[in-house]
Amino acid sequence: MALDRQRDEPRRNTCDDIAVSTRIRLARNLADHPFPDRMSDEQAEEILEKVSGLFQPLDAGARFHTVRLTRENRLKARVLVENHLISPEFAGSDRPHGVILSEARGISVMVGEEDHIRIQTIGPGLCLEERMQEAQRVDEIIDGGLLYAFDGDFGYLTSCPTNLGTALRASVMLHLPALTESGAIREIVTAVGKMGLAVRGLYGEGSQVQGALYQVSNQTTLGLTESEIIDRVTAVVERIVEQERALRTRFKTQRPARFQDRVWRAWGLLSHARLLSGEDAMRLLSDLRWGVAEGELPPMPMTRLNDLLRDIQPGVLANAAGRALDAGARDAARAGAVRAALTAT
Amino acid sequence: MALDRQRDEPRRNTCDDIAVSTRIRLARNLADHPFPDRMSDEQAEEILEKVSGLFQPLDAGARFHTVRLTRENRLKARVLVENHLISPEFAGSDRPHGVILSEARGISVMVGEEDHIRIQTIGPGLCLEERMQEAQRVDEIIDGGLLYAFDGDFGYLTSCPTNLGTALRASVMLHLPALTESGAIREIVTAVGKMGLAVRGLYGEGSQVQGALYQVSNQTTLGLTESEIIDRVTAVVERIVEQERALRTRFKTQRPARFQDRVWRAWGLLSHARLLSGEDAMRLLSDLRWGVAEGELPPMPMTRLNDLLRDIQPGVLANAAGRALDAGARDAARAGAVRAALTAT
Repeated sequence: MALDRQRDEPRRNTCDDIAVSTRIRLARNLADHPFPDRMSDEQAEEILEKVSGLFQPLDAGARFHTVRLTRENRLKARVLVENHLISPEFAGSDRPHGVILSEARGISVMVGEEDHIRIQTIGPGLCLEERMQEAQRVDEIIDGGLLYAFDGDFGYLTSCPTNLGTALRASVMLHLPALTESGAIREIVTAVGKMGLAVRGLYGEGSQVQGALYQVSNQTTLGLTESEIIDRVTAVVERIVEQERALRTRFKTQRPARFQDRVWRAWGLLSHARLLSGEDAMRLLSDLRWGVAEGELPPMPMTRLNDLLRDIQPGVLANAAGRALDAGARDAARAGAVRAALTAT
Repeated sequence: MALDRQRDEPRRNTCDDIAVSTRIRLARNLADHPFPDRMSDEQAEEILEKVSGLFQPLDAGARFHTVRLTRENRLKARVLVENHLISPEFAGSDRPHGVILSEARGISVMVGEEDHIRIQTIGPGLCLEERMQEAQRVDEIIDGGLLYAFDGDFGYLTSCPTNLGTALRASVMLHLPALTESGAIREIVTAVGKMGLAVRGLYGEGSQVQGALYQVSNQTTLGLTESEIIDRVTAVVERIVEQERALRTRFKTQRPARFQDRVWRAWGLLSHARLLSGEDAMRLLSDLRWGVAEGELPPMPMTRLNDLLRDIQPGVLANAAGRALDAGARDAARAGAVRAALTAT
């Protein structure tokens, strides 16, 4: 099934309006090395050197580079978190840690996270197979030079037993404004939970979910193959997308003026405001995305809206400004970034 | 003083950003006729005929026309109220009543109001002398054909003793967003009250004043000449305008980003919303006017903003649509009227 879908490329794009991005994460640990929670700083340093070394030969093509994360470059770490390239826990770690990056391709290899190594690939839309293949290629690079901690019964050994087996987390970020607005998202969270998957608000929880952005991911890593996990996540995502679409149609047809007003107000505010709080921006960008997806607002590439979700985050804004920003300056910079993106042609 | 100002024309325009409009009202009753509260319908009808007849010879130039207000044309009456050409009480009267109009010149003569005759002239900006002269010309037309109830001591006799004397009400509509926002308007209301003048919210009262629009008018009609009344109202208006200006400057300089954000948001919403409640529209148009007046928003004639205050009222909207509008249709029509006005070049 997975292969079928891959050949049938157009299908991938049919839900890019709702599926914001796809992420694959593989957890790996090295044999003959203490697990991270028992490692000395020297040993952590040694593993970072070894893994990074494997990507050195590939450096010539400028495909990978290593960033050591220290207390001095917390802003860099924050930007990587906001780009979804590293985890917040990893960014805050106090031991030697670093990430091997190929940013343009959405590939990151965290060394010194909860596990020795976490391979992550991310890309726009719903593209689990492609991201999985990419992750597997990175996995092979490391596997070719270092010995993984692997057990015939338990598969890849991980720090936390919930990751044993495939040590794979496949997740898709979905934009679900209609399900959120109607409250139907609650039933979906429950139903999906019973299938061994989780639906979580990306920013905030429960009714406080900002921007109507959710992450759907597998919770089970053991007892299923990688393909089975990916098929299962894909099937659930497609089902949620269908339900979101049905509800969107209902909103649009039952109260067209109210829908139009909502999305045009978002457009008007985002393209004119001089100050935007993070919360305001997330809420309005959600309405804007909804309006663009439904063809009510002027057409705009979804990738630009995806980029905006990232570009309005505090670290990215400070990085772009080249200086620390207080709340007022940050809100002004955020409004400026949004206006620039919306008026770009 | 009044004459000086008249010759010094440019001064008139210096506060058109804050002074929305000026209105003069003269109350008159006819001698040898019972006062309105004792009149029969036949007598009311007779007075309407007589006054209307005085303006017939002038009809050739299409300068005046008479509108009889009946139960059947309540919408017409409502539109006239929203145009500030007749009073709400007059519109709702059950006895024979009508108004002689020269709409283009802002002149109306209500026959059958609280007094037999109420002459009213209205125009944009601060222009008390001009409107007074216009009202006096109309007054002379009537005075030339009918005998007014006039007393050597009490002046013009009116139904309500508070109008005795000159029977003149001179009022100026002011847009006072900064005084409203800061709360300083409360002190002004008190101070002006002690000078025999009143400051009243045009739409709503107290902190509920919509659109930050206030009417400043004389409360005393007896014991002062017309010129003295007009000078006094002018002086008070100019003082309020000064205070509003000083506060506006403070808002702009102390928190420039907040001011800019506020007025640009109003612009963005007004030029994009598909539904606008009356309250929303008044609030946003107030911010818009403030932004245009301070040169923060793209330039726009103040008269267009004045017209919008009228064009978003329920009666005017229904009249333009040619049919009764339910709340949803009215909000949609209001949003459409605002968008059209803001995108007009």
